[in-house]
Amino acid sequence: MTFILDHRLAESSFFIEDWNLCRVLLKNDKTWPWLYLVPRRENIREIYDLAAADQIQLIHEISMASRALTFLYKPDKINTAALGNMVPQLHVHIFARFRDDPAWPRPVWAVQRDEISYTEVEKNAESNKLKECFEKMRTGDKTRCQI
Amino acid sequence: MTFILDHRLAESSFFIEDWNLCRVLLKNDKTWPWLYLVPRRENIREIYDLAAADQIQLIHEISMASRALTFLYKPDKINTAALGNMVPQLHVHIFARFRDDPAWPRPVWAVQRDEISYTEVEKNAESNKLKECFEKMRTGDKTRCQI
Repeated sequence: MTFILDHRLAESSFFIEDWNLCRVLLKNDKTWPWLYLVPRRENIREIYDLAAADQIQLIHEISMASRALTFLYKPDKINTAALGNMVPQLHVHIFARFRDDPAWPRPVWAVQRDEISYTEVEKNAESNKLKECFEKMRTGDKTRCQI
Repeated sequence: MTFILDHRLAESSFFIEDWNLCRVLLKNDKTWPWLYLVPRRENIREIYDLAAADQIQLIHEISMASRALTFLYKPDKINTAALGNMVPQLHVHIFARFRDDPAWPRPVWAVQRDEISYTEVEKNAESNKLKECFEKMRTGDKTRCQI
């Protein structure tokens, strides 16, 4: 079983870590805190292409990513989407929305805008913050990353 | 436990049937075959607000709805999204996309368009088609609604 991340996903994001099922990436656009979850399986386009156990792991990982974004960024809403019309490799977008963001309350895709890349310093800071939060969630540290 | 469907979801769709977790509705816009899945639970905004067992049921029902759309409409891609910026009651959009649809390959929200309501006859036909497919899937009839 060989997992190869689609180059368009790789080029628009940076690696955070691998979970049991998914590769976790941060989209390189600091307009919104935005994760991609990509199941590390071959030839998967739709959620139903995943084995039943992987589907259960996927919803667990979607929840974990959503909780982390909620804890870290205190958004007004989490948005979750698996579209894949341009990049068919199954990937789930999970991102934080705010009442004062450039598209609120419309879907982010309703507003045309330039993406704003992270600087190297910002990228490392975000990556560390996310990884620390995920680790605390995994180890069940009740004083951190709980919502 | 009282489940009340948000009036904006009710007014923009029609009832198909209730599953173990979700109410299944067909959006009243025949541009795309488009289902809403609404967990029949109180005060749920995010997927992680659902109990763990309900999250598992949700991904199962997302898969079932997606398979049915794939079987019935032969789309090029299924799109799935839980946004909720305007209607915070958790609801999952599952809809069929086609290479010749008015927004392809962009997300449907990137294109402004008028919704096209079903006629009463069309609505009944779609509803019956969906219910028949769901029933065949539940009873495991291998000759129908398999993809």
